[in-house]
Amino acid sequence: MTPIYLDHLAGTPLHPQVKEAMIHHIQHVFGNPVADYSLGQQASQALEKAREQVAALINADPKEIVFTSGGTESVNHAVKGVAIGLRERGRHLITSNIEHKSVLNSIRTLRLLDYRVTSLEVDRYGLVDPAAVEKAITKDTILITIMLANNEIGTIEPIRDIARIAQKHKVVFHTDAVDAVGVIPVDVQDLGVNLLSLAANMFYGPPGVGALYIKKGTPVWPLLDGGMQENKRRAGTENLIGIVGMGVAAELAKKEMPERLPRLQALKDRLTRGLLERIPDIQINGHPTQCLPHVVSVSIKYVEGESLMLMLDEEGICAATRSACASGSLRASHVLIATGMDFATAQGTLLFSFGRDNTEADVDRVLEVLPPIVQTLRDMSPLYKKAHQ
Amino acid sequence: MTPIYLDHLAGTPLHPQVKEAMIHHIQHVFGNPVADYSLGQQASQALEKAREQVAALINADPKEIVFTSGGTESVNHAVKGVAIGLRERGRHLITSNIEHKSVLNSIRTLRLLDYRVTSLEVDRYGLVDPAAVEKAITKDTILITIMLANNEIGTIEPIRDIARIAQKHKVVFHTDAVDAVGVIPVDVQDLGVNLLSLAANMFYGPPGVGALYIKKGTPVWPLLDGGMQENKRRAGTENLIGIVGMGVAAELAKKEMPERLPRLQALKDRLTRGLLERIPDIQINGHPTQCLPHVVSVSIKYVEGESLMLMLDEEGICAATRSACASGSLRASHVLIATGMDFATAQGTLLFSFGRDNTEADVDRVLEVLPPIVQTLRDMSPLYKKAHQ
Repeated sequence: MTPIYLDHLAGTPLHPQVKEAMIHHIQHVFGNPVADYSLGQQASQALEKAREQVAALINADPKEIVFTSGGTESVNHAVKGVAIGLRERGRHLITSNIEHKSVLNSIRTLRLLDYRVTSLEVDRYGLVDPAAVEKAITKDTILITIMLANNEIGTIEPIRDIARIAQKHKVVFHTDAVDAVGVIPVDVQDLGVNLLSLAANMFYGPPGVGALYIKKGTPVWPLLDGGMQENKRRAGTENLIGIVGMGVAAELAKKEMPERLPRLQALKDRLTRGLLERIPDIQINGHPTQCLPHVVSVSIKYVEGESLMLMLDEEGICAATRSACASGSLRASHVLIATGMDFATAQGTLLFSFGRDNTEADVDRVLEVLPPIVQTLRDMSPLYKKAHQ
Repeated sequence: MTPIYLDHLAGTPLHPQVKEAMIHHIQHVFGNPVADYSLGQQASQALEKAREQVAALINADPKEIVFTSGGTESVNHAVKGVAIGLRERGRHLITSNIEHKSVLNSIRTLRLLDYRVTSLEVDRYGLVDPAAVEKAITKDTILITIMLANNEIGTIEPIRDIARIAQKHKVVFHTDAVDAVGVIPVDVQDLGVNLLSLAANMFYGPPGVGALYIKKGTPVWPLLDGGMQENKRRAGTENLIGIVGMGVAAELAKKEMPERLPRLQALKDRLTRGLLERIPDIQINGHPTQCLPHVVSVSIKYVEGESLMLMLDEEGICAATRSACASGSLRASHVLIATGMDFATAQGTLLFSFGRDNTEADVDRVLEVLPPIVQTLRDMSPLYKKAHQ
């Protein structure tokens, strides 16, 4: 039985055309893009073609795209690179308390190096208030970093408004757009950001490849020091096989998005409606409208998300309990806690994320098997019994 | 005409079995290794198998291997990670002035953050003197970083002796072994190092994949902050396709090394001998015996290396003038200058590096076409005319 994969936020399967392009590259192209002889030029052309494809997806100039080893490196590069690049101007950063761990832990490292941070609270939907961002700015502020869409509840932040405030106060603005780029339209010109992180494995490209958009003139110190690759902004021989895959994935994402979007939204709506109809005492997380079209986060009272996930796995359904990058941690999601949820309810959360191969039948299968699983677990729960006596 | 590739220090072609393994993975394996459902476990098994293969190549425990996006990231991770991890103990580092740019530029960044550095001189062969290392140690020294084999002249440093000194003074010791691992036997237990960097594209694995050996108990702060991947030492979804390729490449390197080594050494000897016989006024760089078996660096007086390289390219021969990571820079090699060479001679350097596909015929072709190229260029050189009047 082929599993029903509903964890696209943890990584998407490769698009068949991405597979094809990568296999072709493995079989036929060789050379280091920096080499000056003709063999190097073939590799260099493949690299620059991918750069154009990725730039087109977010309406950037190819010169503004730096390839990285994924979303995490892009975020580390942006946050630490601005911190070091502007350390003479100030040492204060602004972020939110629902960011991905790559932002939060980059900032933890910067604290060791005597940087200060304001971490903004969010409302019950996970929204950051642009007015709160403006209020937090001091003359010492060098960077604002707020994610475009949250990776656990899907809420889309008011990036355009925050960018306007950042511009007004001449503060560099980075957005972690890893979970948004390739899924919903993202246009760096329209948003007005200085830095934007994206990752190929969120749009049917390979894992371990990403990019950082660096608007011309943005003062960013390299994260990886060394050779002159990526126009001196990111040292190290490029993962060209992965980058070629990312380029094709970007081109396909742009082309197929108009058709992918309504399909994903329909699956999301079908699952949300079905869950609310079939399972009592649940809560759908994230903003009801300002939200990623492929994400359903549901908190199911009186049960453990981990148990639900494992029992769904036995039924051939892959879902998550939280961000893949937080797997291995047993603590409740910092995102859900930040929205004001209590620990017990947060622990009962399942995270479904759809992709281009999913069908209504997949949703219906979840709606068939999940309610009895929930009931089985609730029947064993002393808390549930107490509440329903 | 298939080009004769003699620039393996810039990257090796994929081994056919590496291609096969990567293509198989692209076609058949999917999943994020951190996911807890069964699909994630398949990916996780592929990851851990590669980790064992890489560990076996350098006689490490698989738990001591952290996958990275290449040699450059490994070096940045080691150097900056120890600097941050031990910042309370001291802020002094020791290195040599013939290191790869990834070491030198990582240290440049650390200088901005108020670290101090002693950069040791080398002798005419590029050898670091272990006694000089010991003399440079202060009570503030937290890291010694000296490369295992130089990437421009091939000289192999006395790593075992330096490691003993580092141990005696309880200073962490990192070696950049990117150009050595997979080519010559490298055994981390025997060397006694705390940290060692390696890259897959030096031994017929893919570009953009590497590893850092971190001996148990070594205090290293992560370079990439974020999720819990790589046992919390390196965040970010793994480039699993590349890592699988690196694993197979490591296994093959170990298996085929006894047979590869004498073949490479024979090609090197043949080229060295032939060059000395056929071209006057040249110098073979690097240590005559303590040297990588596949590297020939030759400085040819009165000509420009860049012109030689381009004219060889027209004859279908790919050679380098220097480290691939320094391409784009027009300055003379810092390595050659450090050995005491004058700028003009350093600019006339060609760097040949052999690989498993090269044959005696390749060497003979170089020996056939290079002497007349040199003569043509020398005939146009005013300096040559002056010296030979």
